[in-house]
Amino acid sequence: MVSAGDTPFDVITMGRIGVDVYPLQVGVSLRHVTSFGKYLGGSSSNVAVAAARFGHRVATITRTGEDPFGEFLHDALRGFGVDDRYVTAVPHLPTPVTFCEIFPPDDFPLYFYRQPKAPDLEIHPHELDHEAIERSKVFWVTVTGLSQEPSRSATLGALQRRAKRGITVIDLDYRPMFWDSREEARHWIEQALPHVTVAVGNQDECETAVGTRDPRETAARLHAAGVELAVVKQGPKGVYADDGTDAVEVPPAPVEVVNGLGAGDAFGGALCHALLEGWGLERSMRFANAAGAIVAGRLACADAMPTREEVEAKLEEAVNA
Amino acid sequence: MVSAGDTPFDVITMGRIGVDVYPLQVGVSLRHVTSFGKYLGGSSSNVAVAAARFGHRVATITRTGEDPFGEFLHDALRGFGVDDRYVTAVPHLPTPVTFCEIFPPDDFPLYFYRQPKAPDLEIHPHELDHEAIERSKVFWVTVTGLSQEPSRSATLGALQRRAKRGITVIDLDYRPMFWDSREEARHWIEQALPHVTVAVGNQDECETAVGTRDPRETAARLHAAGVELAVVKQGPKGVYADDGTDAVEVPPAPVEVVNGLGAGDAFGGALCHALLEGWGLERSMRFANAAGAIVAGRLACADAMPTREEVEAKLEEAVNA
Repeated sequence: MVSAGDTPFDVITMGRIGVDVYPLQVGVSLRHVTSFGKYLGGSSSNVAVAAARFGHRVATITRTGEDPFGEFLHDALRGFGVDDRYVTAVPHLPTPVTFCEIFPPDDFPLYFYRQPKAPDLEIHPHELDHEAIERSKVFWVTVTGLSQEPSRSATLGALQRRAKRGITVIDLDYRPMFWDSREEARHWIEQALPHVTVAVGNQDECETAVGTRDPRETAARLHAAGVELAVVKQGPKGVYADDGTDAVEVPPAPVEVVNGLGAGDAFGGALCHALLEGWGLERSMRFANAAGAIVAGRLACADAMPTREEVEAKLEEAVNA
Repeated sequence: MVSAGDTPFDVITMGRIGVDVYPLQVGVSLRHVTSFGKYLGGSSSNVAVAAARFGHRVATITRTGEDPFGEFLHDALRGFGVDDRYVTAVPHLPTPVTFCEIFPPDDFPLYFYRQPKAPDLEIHPHELDHEAIERSKVFWVTVTGLSQEPSRSATLGALQRRAKRGITVIDLDYRPMFWDSREEARHWIEQALPHVTVAVGNQDECETAVGTRDPRETAARLHAAGVELAVVKQGPKGVYADDGTDAVEVPPAPVEVVNGLGAGDAFGGALCHALLEGWGLERSMRFANAAGAIVAGRLACADAMPTREEVEAKLEEAVNA
């Protein structure tokens, strides 16, 4: 537990973690791939890593299996400078593993092994350090964290108690395989939206959340639900961001895609950084886009999260191109 | 379906299949291992591969997920000369994966990802080619195949219809994580034993099957249940085999163990070969022991199954040592 005298965290994320077992060959089906590497994975964990790379004090709230892969995830988080004090083990549930196939530029199928239940969906409300959550400058939750109890109640309870202190983000990461229906996801997202200040997602995820793919209409509906900043990722069309006062549409940073997985989480970590810095919408979105592009251009995900200097260099490159 | 004019199979095995995702480093925990290879796995599938290496006509009955890993398993079986006509895909269930840790000489923990259900436990009785099973010279089933329906009914039904024609083997491979209790496993093994001619297992598995670890008492109880040949693997003490007329105890072949996984399946494939050749107990057990030792001395499992010449060379080596 954090005592009152501790420095608050800059960012606390809450959600998924697992081991990504990814091919060491690009463009090869799992039918033919011959070797794999293992990496820290899980969206909110990757966002924590990405935020830590920008020099912030970051923790993540999640759970692993009580097994060697769980120990690896602790090692990896600490190696990336993410505080792992809120990462605990669940007996009798294996640490999830995820395989992927890497078919650049735009096909990256995922194969999840999260049955019978992912430990990260076993986060109990009473285990949370609410004081630390309330004091963190950014608190980041995900739609996947709403997909099953007790993590759903833990996530919603944490949001309610935080009561929009500071920057409170929901990543609208909707993954159909974790839900019975899109409508069920929407129902629970609706419970979360009044308690967040920022919502970020791609157009498909926004459709799940608020029933439209149109970025302006998405922003209007998110604002109506109490969200201050809406960020809609439109792929090649760039990012639309709307805080109710200003609205910008920023084109994607140029990139030769190697592995699109992790790019969204890099965007998320960079968005945390931009929000903490208090930058304007345009600069924030350009920075986050550039961070995402860097990771899309690399094979790794968590291991590929850029530093501020790398993102700035990428932005320079775009300006000079 | 096999038509009446087809040559019968020498060996048909029925049971588990999956992708083994094994470390490319020995003596390293999953916490620290950095890369993995992928291999055909699953006991009865490995036995099929081992038997095929001795030149026999072999098929296996099992099921995979409808995914790239499932396609890989078909490729692998065919590559090893095992007929895959009885290997079908189950929609909506992933092909199981198994991780292991390799701590020679005697610690090889396995981490199974077979939830919510392994496709190989979805073998339905009506899908079986009973004519081919009845005509096969050897039919090999496993205790794991009895652990869940419908594969349990399929296995027991196939045994009943075969009615001890030819050589009918049960591999007593009892894995606690696939069962609610040892007693439940024993109950279903008892249903199978009257329909087999050969039972093979280590002392722990024999205890599950017939309630004793003593090899002579195990053999007596198996004989009483209708089994002709009892084969009890006692680790460093060697193998005890008892057909009710003769009994032998054969020491293990010398080996510097690299990876003990797969050695039992190599033993099984070699046992099929010995039984098909009609060898005496002593020669059969020495041959099977040597085959197991060869695989224990290699990192791979299915990929490491020896030819007859390699086993004979190993036996020569033991004689000359």
